[in-house]
Amino acid sequence: MGPHPAVAAIRLAVRRVLHDILTELNTATGVPASTVAERTPERPPAPLVLVACSGGADSMALASALAFEAPRLGVRAGGVTVDHGLQNGSDLRAEEVVLRLRELGLDPVEATTVTVGRAGGPEAAARDARYAALDAAAARHGAAAVLLGHTRDDQAETVLLGLARGSGIRSLSGMAAVSGAGGRYRRPFLQVDRQTARKACMVQSLPVWDDPHNADPAYTRSRLRHEGLPALEKALGKGVVEALARTAQLSRDDADALDTWARQAEAGVRDATGVLECAKLYALPPAVRRRILRRAAIEAGAPAGALFARHIEEVDRLITGWRGQGAINLPGKVVARRQGGRLVIRQG
Amino acid sequence: MGPHPAVAAIRLAVRRVLHDILTELNTATGVPASTVAERTPERPPAPLVLVACSGGADSMALASALAFEAPRLGVRAGGVTVDHGLQNGSDLRAEEVVLRLRELGLDPVEATTVTVGRAGGPEAAARDARYAALDAAAARHGAAAVLLGHTRDDQAETVLLGLARGSGIRSLSGMAAVSGAGGRYRRPFLQVDRQTARKACMVQSLPVWDDPHNADPAYTRSRLRHEGLPALEKALGKGVVEALARTAQLSRDDADALDTWARQAEAGVRDATGVLECAKLYALPPAVRRRILRRAAIEAGAPAGALFARHIEEVDRLITGWRGQGAINLPGKVVARRQGGRLVIRQG
Repeated sequence: MGPHPAVAAIRLAVRRVLHDILTELNTATGVPASTVAERTPERPPAPLVLVACSGGADSMALASALAFEAPRLGVRAGGVTVDHGLQNGSDLRAEEVVLRLRELGLDPVEATTVTVGRAGGPEAAARDARYAALDAAAARHGAAAVLLGHTRDDQAETVLLGLARGSGIRSLSGMAAVSGAGGRYRRPFLQVDRQTARKACMVQSLPVWDDPHNADPAYTRSRLRHEGLPALEKALGKGVVEALARTAQLSRDDADALDTWARQAEAGVRDATGVLECAKLYALPPAVRRRILRRAAIEAGAPAGALFARHIEEVDRLITGWRGQGAINLPGKVVARRQGGRLVIRQG
Repeated sequence: MGPHPAVAAIRLAVRRVLHDILTELNTATGVPASTVAERTPERPPAPLVLVACSGGADSMALASALAFEAPRLGVRAGGVTVDHGLQNGSDLRAEEVVLRLRELGLDPVEATTVTVGRAGGPEAAARDARYAALDAAAARHGAAAVLLGHTRDDQAETVLLGLARGSGIRSLSGMAAVSGAGGRYRRPFLQVDRQTARKACMVQSLPVWDDPHNADPAYTRSRLRHEGLPALEKALGKGVVEALARTAQLSRDDADALDTWARQAEAGVRDATGVLECAKLYALPPAVRRRILRRAAIEAGAPAGALFARHIEEVDRLITGWRGQGAINLPGKVVARRQGGRLVIRQG
């Protein structure tokens, strides 16, 4: 008798990602993937893969699957838990998570404490601190990759949060399966639903910790999870989470292709001194032109996070609806103006 | 004292669209827009613009704005109401709408009765019948355009319905401001919210009819309107409708640009006999390659509406994940198979 279907599903997801990591490592070192398990003195030590674990069901399920699959593929499995220091007793919980991860057979395992700032709001600040700590842990241990437990449900929520910004398909593309410097972060569970992760913990008798923040209506994501998405599912049917996750993937591919196009087209719309020419911009499809304008504004010093679709639309009207309008003020003290058939975007 | 802000907003929206229509007509006939109003015997009769009116607040507001703006721009304004024959007394209501439109000064005004089939479900069948009737009315009266009362809220609902399909950014692009053969249909209210249209009817003392279907939870759109969207607004904030409408516009531009790219790239990936070459397809960005595959499947006879993202993904794996897999069956008895470095997609 094989494992419970939920356990089989999480293990398969992790196995696929470990296989990808090994293939990439071996492509880099010239050793075929199938021989990695047969370690000999001449070969480098087995690669280390860390799991980032909060002690919640998603990342505990991930840790259990990594603990099972890694030795079978000649990979060392370790774990990191981040203590955000935002609640009383968070240090005790971190210690408990370390214990659980060791019980699963992971080694090395460590808890790392961070100081959460305020920039960008509580959720963004906690996230920034967490990734900085994970980056440091990965560097310290020489890890080949860090696995993150984001599920298909998290992805669906991220797409809806992006939708609420109304800033185009890049913000609909959710979280990437591979991200970070050198593709360090991997998200094996983006196609696995939260219910499956919970079930896998239950049938493996893994105790899990429920983060009270996840149910706190003060957090946008929590409201979305407990009220927004369920109401949307009630209206649109049960497939909404899957549809949102698929939208993320398709939007990501589309956004990547259009960014490539804009990069390639950019050289052709600048004059000999590098200034943008309005007539050439006008001839491009709007989607490509606006991406070039956005890139130019960021290059001139506008902060990407403060540059909204409506800013770019206004600059675009200097090209498509020219009737002598004045300079357009953009975030970061960047100014866009049309001068004799040229579009000048610069600071000050 | 000017008109109430809601009335000013709906009139401005209609004025802009009428101006566009006149500019296009005059570009076609070589007469500058500004002289259209000065009719002389040599000039063709003033163009006719029809409004499609259900008697609901959105389309009554639209009719009132058309009645006000059209004569000022040398345009004749008429109206059509479609009796779907789905409710007892719908004929009486159609007669009443005709009366109201005449009171607004529209001429010609007519009610047209349709028989709603069953293809594609009740909502799609009613829509198909309605557009066929509007097409016929436009042709009968020689109308330059037909105005439709879809608001920004309708657009937001359409985007969410598209999102639930999970089939990519084309389905997120909602309704076009200009659509139909020769750009016949215009939607002046895509940037106007439903509340503004209702308010404009109220302050102009225009009686409006509430379609009971709009509140019937048997209809997906109705559930979305009364439960899904309000819950999403509660979770994400009041700007959701606007964000969804902006997403529609950005997605439409992006989808158009990628379709253009795919059309242009298609010639370069076929061999001398017109068969797709796998190596050349492989070199394209996934977003472009999948669009070419989709076009090829439709060209081979697969019905566009039955062809989902997962079908195209499977065909795509013949290119990106080739391990000798067999033929892929697509809707419409279309089969895709890889044969000696070529991708053959055909019926049977």
